[in-house]
Amino acid sequence: MNYPNGIKKNKTIIWSNRGMRLEEDLNNANTFYLNNNIAIIHKKPTPIKIKKIEYPSRKATKITEGYFDISSTTDYNGLYKGKYIDFEAKETSSETSFPLSNIHNHQLIHLKKIVEHGGISFIIIRFSKLNLTFLFESEKLLDFENKKSIKLEYFKNNCKIIKEGYSPRIDYLKTVDEIYFGGKNE
Amino acid sequence: MNYPNGIKKNKTIIWSNRGMRLEEDLNNANTFYLNNNIAIIHKKPTPIKIKKIEYPSRKATKITEGYFDISSTTDYNGLYKGKYIDFEAKETSSETSFPLSNIHNHQLIHLKKIVEHGGISFIIIRFSKLNLTFLFESEKLLDFENKKSIKLEYFKNNCKIIKEGYSPRIDYLKTVDEIYFGGKNE
Repeated sequence: MNYPNGIKKNKTIIWSNRGMRLEEDLNNANTFYLNNNIAIIHKKPTPIKIKKIEYPSRKATKITEGYFDISSTTDYNGLYKGKYIDFEAKETSSETSFPLSNIHNHQLIHLKKIVEHGGISFIIIRFSKLNLTFLFESEKLLDFENKKSIKLEYFKNNCKIIKEGYSPRIDYLKTVDEIYFGGKNE
Repeated sequence: MNYPNGIKKNKTIIWSNRGMRLEEDLNNANTFYLNNNIAIIHKKPTPIKIKKIEYPSRKATKITEGYFDISSTTDYNGLYKGKYIDFEAKETSSETSFPLSNIHNHQLIHLKKIVEHGGISFIIIRFSKLNLTFLFESEKLLDFENKKSIKLEYFKNNCKIIKEGYSPRIDYLKTVDEIYFGGKNE
């Protein structure tokens, strides 16, 4: 059910609208943070393997064959309160557990390295059908080496919920404040 | 003379080899830093505006029309010694000055914001024909509001040179150490 940026299939609209919203929510939050000078966090462009290029005119460069590539890092990174922030965001349609196969192994390694080097890193995980969004700190990945999934119960007992609000709908830096900055939200 | 990633024209090979090398040098340096657990710095993928997609088979997604897009941030960012690092890298064929038109205004704004928020940001500028590479701290941008270019003399008098070496050829974090970490290079 994962389509790249803005590409949606319309079969089951209600579910789809819900399911595709995490990326949009995060982009809206990041725009809000940028406009209000709270943080500088951006989604990285989707990497694309370019196979063919044409030059229809002197100034224009047209890609005529390209493919979506696997990212070597995570989708989001930036700067907040002087700290480096790095995270991946994933949705699952499961109502019982989050399959770790959703995240590439080199992304997991990347997240752990960020912690080692003094940055803040986490995964935002949304159970779309339950409308529950959690912030899962990368430090907790150690408990899931060689595991295939993380049970919903684990999230409920060990992770903070990112509450839904207005403007931005998903104010995930509030949750970051609670976990990493001792709850201070200036 | 700016072509996207890995696209080179072969007319003047000596000059071209030199001129196109900065990006390659920086990618090599970043790979070296990553492999030796020194820093986690990556080049962001080039943003591409996708206009047409085809599905030649159930699993394949093929981009059949796309265009290079303008980046809203800089090309490189990451984490070094617990600090957020962000920079742009540019080459000029001029032997006398660096034209500021080489860098988009929103990129300049981005670089200045990083400083405001407690990160490290700079521009790596190479005078290709002179084989001179400078580290220009974003703080110095204030001296060039509404200016069109920065003279080579300014760089020589006010900026540190990134010296060429071996493995990595452009060890720019050494220069970062000198400027931002009091010369300590553990």
